[in-house]
Amino acid sequence: MAPVRNTRVLFNEYAEGYPIPGKTLVVDKSETIDLEGAPLKNGQVLVKTIAISVDPYQRGRMSEPGKTTSGDAYELGKPLVNYVVVKVIRSENPDFAPGQHVYGMGDFSEYQILTDLSTWKVLPETRGTPWSAYVGVLGMPGQTAFYGWKEAAHAKKGETIYISTAAGAVGSMVVQIAKADGLKVIASAGTESKLQFLRELGADVVFNYKTTNVEDVLKEHGPIDIYWDNAGGKSLDAALANLNTFGRVVKIGSISSYNSKPEPIYNTETILWKRIIIRGVLVFDHHEQYLDEFYATFPPKVAKGEIKYVEHVVRSLDETPQLVLDQQKGNNTGKAVIVLADE
Amino acid sequence: MAPVRNTRVLFNEYAEGYPIPGKTLVVDKSETIDLEGAPLKNGQVLVKTIAISVDPYQRGRMSEPGKTTSGDAYELGKPLVNYVVVKVIRSENPDFAPGQHVYGMGDFSEYQILTDLSTWKVLPETRGTPWSAYVGVLGMPGQTAFYGWKEAAHAKKGETIYISTAAGAVGSMVVQIAKADGLKVIASAGTESKLQFLRELGADVVFNYKTTNVEDVLKEHGPIDIYWDNAGGKSLDAALANLNTFGRVVKIGSISSYNSKPEPIYNTETILWKRIIIRGVLVFDHHEQYLDEFYATFPPKVAKGEIKYVEHVVRSLDETPQLVLDQQKGNNTGKAVIVLADE
Repeated sequence: MAPVRNTRVLFNEYAEGYPIPGKTLVVDKSETIDLEGAPLKNGQVLVKTIAISVDPYQRGRMSEPGKTTSGDAYELGKPLVNYVVVKVIRSENPDFAPGQHVYGMGDFSEYQILTDLSTWKVLPETRGTPWSAYVGVLGMPGQTAFYGWKEAAHAKKGETIYISTAAGAVGSMVVQIAKADGLKVIASAGTESKLQFLRELGADVVFNYKTTNVEDVLKEHGPIDIYWDNAGGKSLDAALANLNTFGRVVKIGSISSYNSKPEPIYNTETILWKRIIIRGVLVFDHHEQYLDEFYATFPPKVAKGEIKYVEHVVRSLDETPQLVLDQQKGNNTGKAVIVLADE
Repeated sequence: MAPVRNTRVLFNEYAEGYPIPGKTLVVDKSETIDLEGAPLKNGQVLVKTIAISVDPYQRGRMSEPGKTTSGDAYELGKPLVNYVVVKVIRSENPDFAPGQHVYGMGDFSEYQILTDLSTWKVLPETRGTPWSAYVGVLGMPGQTAFYGWKEAAHAKKGETIYISTAAGAVGSMVVQIAKADGLKVIASAGTESKLQFLRELGADVVFNYKTTNVEDVLKEHGPIDIYWDNAGGKSLDAALANLNTFGRVVKIGSISSYNSKPEPIYNTETILWKRIIIRGVLVFDHHEQYLDEFYATFPPKVAKGEIKYVEHVVRSLDETPQLVLDQQKGNNTGKAVIVLADE
């Protein structure tokens, strides 16, 4: 069989402020790959990309080396990298068989040859669950919600939680876990369609942070016991002022400062008098503790429709640079995902 | 015996900014008390004041009701209240005998009749330890240091800690505990005599935060694993920027914002990427857990000179309003204490 085109999204230029489609990220169609003939070394696997996750934290890796936050800077001229679901086409590795679906950190490309598979995981075949779910509600975002909840929320029935960017992939999972555990949920987002989604998830109070003062809402519907912080900045400051004694802040994101200078926080004295705990949680610290429980619990719930989620799907790598920008600006509703094949 | 004068320090006016001697606090000599003849109800105890603690947190109770931080507002026209050591003169309470020294929250007055003694504690008679120590190195400040260390510092040998207002009653205890546990100690204070005291305590790096940029010092001698926060504001912001992964902030004070508007904090995104834990610790949450261990451990160490401390002593209630102001401004070195009698 003749080589086929292997479209890739390359990291082309360091970003200052928002990433710019065609400058920060470019789509490259110059490469081809011979799916049957490309030589594989012992241990290598040739895979086809099924679904690629696009996540807010990636912005942190688009800054210059030394200015990055969430990991090392992406390499200039190389494909963007993030969580993907791929399907094995050919394998020289005894742990991975053709036809299996595998989850890990891979390139933004149609095909790729994987060499180090030590952190890749073969996915369970759960009837009724699309593969794209494994980079969203069942991937890093869903895991972040679950791990943060177990590790740092210490929620008790009847408490009140405020969740910022609540319609996002992490936030919408937290809304559902919090409601299932008997909490009152205050949730914010930036568009009417996101607020509608939050109402459907059962949030008790929803508001648009772009048109409503966070502090006023928390004063009226709080005080809160937990602040689930995806945002930082003003939301964090308002939450600190409205936390109960022994309140908790679970910090899993900081979208307000990814593309611009951080907004100032003033209400730190209250951390002392209210004996507040603020804690940053990253997903990869806790896989060993919680991943098996997560995979045992959530794929069946998703298959049965007990966990709701919304995806913002694009079907081509060509649309990726714009999707990355839209996500940083909060323009998409639901988990941003690139789906290149359904199975 | 004729009634004697009972000098008191009254809370006279709510403070905005620094408390003003003669306005916020006034010395009152109009009251007398009959030490032998004053009637005592069942359960009451008549006591003579030995030592009174003056602490930075008290500023929070001098604001208008609704604007206070550290507990309820002091009552206008009533004596100031804080931790004291008193000696029992007469007792109608079977748990307290004349001659015993007792520790609790009492009035700034030469004598007083106590009614509710449920939170008062009879002190051990430790040879070589002055009673004033029981409101300082062995009182609330020492306990704050010990409890915060046990609860929230999670220190490991070889780690680096930065301690702000390190020459204060809490900070100087933390410096010594940290050195005893094998940490590298970076310590800041605002006068040369305080820095000299910190050198004597064994701090590895000392600096004057008024003349040196905190950020520069932490960049040069950090990164740090623990920030012991007595200050808030710029010190907290600089510490956040220089914490290691899995760093901890133990917040036990906030002197930078007690008398003026809080300084802004910008470096909160790092809480996420570095998985930092910030926790506020107040002494009265942890007595049940740690007080017995504290009293068993530290009074003998103080008596043997193994724990160093410096007191800023005044010998009369007349000097109290000025002492309170000096402490808020950082003008005194060592634990501020009013000693009215040696035993």
